[in-house]
Amino acid sequence: MGYMGKILKVNLSENSVKETKTDMEIAKKYLGGKGYALRLLYDYLMEYEKLGISARDVDAFGEENVLIFATGPATGVVGFPESGRYHVMALRSPLTGSVASANSGGKFGPFIKFAGYDAIVIEGKSEEPVYLDVNEDGAEIKSAKKLWGLNVFDTTKALANGGSVACIGPAGENLVYFASIMNDEHRAAGRTGVGAVMGSKKLKAIVVSGKKKPEPVKAEEFKQASKEALEKLKANPITSTGLPKYGTAVLVNVINNAGGLPFKNWQKAYNEKADEISGERLAKEFLRKRIACWGCSIGCGRATEVKEGFFKILNTEGPEYESIWALGNDTAVMQLEAVIKANHLCDELGMDTITMGSTIACAMELYEKGYVKPEDLQGMDLSFGNASALVDAVWRTAYKAGFGKYLALGSKRLAELFGAPELSMSVKGMEMPAYDPRAIKGIGLNYATANRGGCHVTGYTIAPEITGFPTKLDPLKYEGKAEWVKIFQDFTSVVNSTVNCLFSTFALGAGDYAKLLSAVTGWEISESGLMKIGERIYNLERLIMNKFGFDAKDDALPKRLLTEALPDGVAKGQVVDPQKFEEMKQEYYKLRGWVNGMPTKEKLKELEIP
Amino acid sequence: MGYMGKILKVNLSENSVKETKTDMEIAKKYLGGKGYALRLLYDYLMEYEKLGISARDVDAFGEENVLIFATGPATGVVGFPESGRYHVMALRSPLTGSVASANSGGKFGPFIKFAGYDAIVIEGKSEEPVYLDVNEDGAEIKSAKKLWGLNVFDTTKALANGGSVACIGPAGENLVYFASIMNDEHRAAGRTGVGAVMGSKKLKAIVVSGKKKPEPVKAEEFKQASKEALEKLKANPITSTGLPKYGTAVLVNVINNAGGLPFKNWQKAYNEKADEISGERLAKEFLRKRIACWGCSIGCGRATEVKEGFFKILNTEGPEYESIWALGNDTAVMQLEAVIKANHLCDELGMDTITMGSTIACAMELYEKGYVKPEDLQGMDLSFGNASALVDAVWRTAYKAGFGKYLALGSKRLAELFGAPELSMSVKGMEMPAYDPRAIKGIGLNYATANRGGCHVTGYTIAPEITGFPTKLDPLKYEGKAEWVKIFQDFTSVVNSTVNCLFSTFALGAGDYAKLLSAVTGWEISESGLMKIGERIYNLERLIMNKFGFDAKDDALPKRLLTEALPDGVAKGQVVDPQKFEEMKQEYYKLRGWVNGMPTKEKLKELEIP
Repeated sequence: MGYMGKILKVNLSENSVKETKTDMEIAKKYLGGKGYALRLLYDYLMEYEKLGISARDVDAFGEENVLIFATGPATGVVGFPESGRYHVMALRSPLTGSVASANSGGKFGPFIKFAGYDAIVIEGKSEEPVYLDVNEDGAEIKSAKKLWGLNVFDTTKALANGGSVACIGPAGENLVYFASIMNDEHRAAGRTGVGAVMGSKKLKAIVVSGKKKPEPVKAEEFKQASKEALEKLKANPITSTGLPKYGTAVLVNVINNAGGLPFKNWQKAYNEKADEISGERLAKEFLRKRIACWGCSIGCGRATEVKEGFFKILNTEGPEYESIWALGNDTAVMQLEAVIKANHLCDELGMDTITMGSTIACAMELYEKGYVKPEDLQGMDLSFGNASALVDAVWRTAYKAGFGKYLALGSKRLAELFGAPELSMSVKGMEMPAYDPRAIKGIGLNYATANRGGCHVTGYTIAPEITGFPTKLDPLKYEGKAEWVKIFQDFTSVVNSTVNCLFSTFALGAGDYAKLLSAVTGWEISESGLMKIGERIYNLERLIMNKFGFDAKDDALPKRLLTEALPDGVAKGQVVDPQKFEEMKQEYYKLRGWVNGMPTKEKLKELEIP
Repeated sequence: MGYMGKILKVNLSENSVKETKTDMEIAKKYLGGKGYALRLLYDYLMEYEKLGISARDVDAFGEENVLIFATGPATGVVGFPESGRYHVMALRSPLTGSVASANSGGKFGPFIKFAGYDAIVIEGKSEEPVYLDVNEDGAEIKSAKKLWGLNVFDTTKALANGGSVACIGPAGENLVYFASIMNDEHRAAGRTGVGAVMGSKKLKAIVVSGKKKPEPVKAEEFKQASKEALEKLKANPITSTGLPKYGTAVLVNVINNAGGLPFKNWQKAYNEKADEISGERLAKEFLRKRIACWGCSIGCGRATEVKEGFFKILNTEGPEYESIWALGNDTAVMQLEAVIKANHLCDELGMDTITMGSTIACAMELYEKGYVKPEDLQGMDLSFGNASALVDAVWRTAYKAGFGKYLALGSKRLAELFGAPELSMSVKGMEMPAYDPRAIKGIGLNYATANRGGCHVTGYTIAPEITGFPTKLDPLKYEGKAEWVKIFQDFTSVVNSTVNCLFSTFALGAGDYAKLLSAVTGWEISESGLMKIGERIYNLERLIMNKFGFDAKDDALPKRLLTEALPDGVAKGQVVDPQKFEEMKQEYYKLRGWVNGMPTKEKLKELEIP
């Protein structure tokens, strides 16, 4: 039925491993993946409260933080399109102080199922470095003494043995606030510092292997729904041509042409030379071949190389659009070769490319304006455009060497430490990615209200506002955006809980998902029922955030976007109008049934959130 | 009388500090610095033998290794020219397996005296990171928990407080086999891995401060000798003009013009483009100002910067000739900016530039010839000439990231591991610096017989063979070189034991030193007496090496120098003729009174070595 029926529960303080049953009542309400994990985290919070530990007391690097690797009913089911992903949650993020959440592809998710589990829950922390070996016979906590210090590639090579490895690199070990968890070498559960949480538990890696197979309950019905879904994916230009041919990097020129490609720490959002770092150029000069995650028909992954010159690099993967933007455009470095190199290093050492690039760009502006002084940099020249300094800064951050110890905190704390907090382009402590709200208003509302911080995928209104799916909206308008943001956020919550790839939603809607899921689980799931589940998941996450102290005041955008008009490009002269933004936000709250950024008791009751 | 009379003895296993008296009988025979330290190390060896621990059992990273920071009668004496240095010895080097020995400038040496001590001896190892705080009131072992992981600059800044700091960077903590000890930020006790020994003891740093003053016994006599010595230094073109104006980097063109500048891992020794990395260019484009060590009249230090472009770097120091050669010529990188950057990183992270550059060059040839494969490099392109890979490799080595874990072993083990041991250009496990014996025969004998491995400063016959001091010898001749090598080795042993800067010997001879030392100590020291002391020190070091298993078979040069003729330059067609080399070596042994590379009993008795 899609679910394997078992959850692995590991306590690293007690060095214990046990199995619990997957709760089908929770699964019916939260599906799996992010939703199910949130529900488990909520239970932990309630337990802690009973023990007198308030949410605010939970230390991101403490024993009480919980890390969950979750799959959903779609994961690993052959024929369910783009079902090769998994979702990682932790109770508290070291970067934001809110709930930590990240999502990754490759094959680790399916392999958790092949080993016989729906999810892996990690409690407590180990004193000595360990790794988790999970297979059909169970799981064992083993010593990682010989692995500690190794980069992501060496760790993966040492453990894979036919299975799939998710691990941290030196950055996670060193508790870099935005360290990532890397699986299958180059796939990243990137944001909110889940890698640092794993490092704080001295958990170096998880290796999963097995041969079990999740099967749909209604085989014939599933076969039909799967066939229809694949046809839709093949008919859609983005999933059948754009993404396979150019990867996500195809967006560089698209977003720049909309006047929304942030440059030099968001001082501008149009770059005449964007072509130099475009997906077209990446495909033409640096692509070796396409790669696809497990079970994926799109294949947007890029196996790349730089054949000669200064940044010559043999086989690597990526970079993705947001990575190119953060490392190459936001920093004004503009050299695609250097960006490929920096991206490779982020994978090797285990760090989120978006926060890394944005934090470097922030540091560059702090230096440009004199907040960071030459002596702080100990010889490094952190000027906008300095490709060498870009690569240097990545090394420094992973190992907290010299100025790297400040970069490792993320841009919010960096800017605060050096006296210019307004120069961090972040929301709730996490840096916004590659789409400027002054040129695209709806994504601005999403950035402000996304639960995990400045996040684009939470409610990717770029789809309608720029690429025209499912319908074309005017990016410069505020009106009507609130509803779209809610819809996208709720549907994305579903997709993060079945665990599928968001790119499938260019072609597939809630109705398609309802059909596929009904066939897999045997339950009667309707389109509106599915959206309700999504709304439930979003509200539960918001409820947990409220407990951490986040509310309407935190649903805000950086001052620069409200006060500094774009100097050029298609959106020249635009800001995010404070009054119109406030109206948009209040309309959003109304639609959500929230007051002051918090779900009302009535809303929680309606969604059956305890 | 120059000596302060006290030695600080620290045991990190027992967390104890005590003072012992400087033994004047030993001082009369060994002076101080390297000589005195060797004598102490010999006593440890004898103690261990009594306990059944043979020399071969001594683990470089074990509790039984001993680390000594030693000054000499000249150190810190105002008016004694170029007396700002100190010498570091350890019983066993992790890189060579022989005795570890390094020498550095700055002001750390004088400050040891100002605190009231002649030497600091470190025994045992600490479980937790600690640092040593030494001043006139004594010394304290303090927790370095907050310093562990910091680079050299941050560590120095945290502790200096008006004193002088010698510390290790991340490379020493990570036990990189050629990690250095850095003092006063950019001065390096560089070679043989003394930094790794310090790191194995979890000793992060030593900070020394105080206001005591070592004074000459015969003040008037000293004043006169000092005045004469300074006049000689001012009259000599190298010490008065060459070194101050261009730093040691002046040698790039000089050695290249002699056809002896090794290129691409010693595949050639002449480079048409040597000018691009010359001292003249360094002074013209990158020099900010001259720097001098404590008490130095020469001032060969370079405060440098790269004002714009890819490797723009704000204030740094160096690089020295051998560093430029290793990082820029041996690797064929040739970009002075990149070399300055790589040199800066070696200082920041704490590694020997000569072994670093040579090891990278060795890896480049291993890669070029297919011994190292692309998958070993995990994306890095380690081709000759790749400036980006040069800098990348330095980072990797310090943190043992990816391929860096092999680079961190030094070229000998690297080449062995990858199946081509003959591609390591080293003697006794330590890489030879920047002078090709095929073009300069005498330095070849010195390389082969230098006690600490492939070392140029042990017996710097470049002085007569190339620069013509004290007299000009023909570099391409073998005859007569054995005697010069012995003389230089013995005199250098003196200079490493009074502890002075070797550059003073361009202008000052044993006679000048005898005068200065007699006045400082009050003893009657003659020129021949001084040379006898030097011979004693050299033989004692050789005796200890023999106990580690080194003998005549190890006094050898890499096969490449004996079989591959230089393809171009002034020494085109030259090799080190095996037969003539052997004759030179046997003559050297005869002059030394050694058989099979070991001092005879008679020689030891003559030199009063126990």
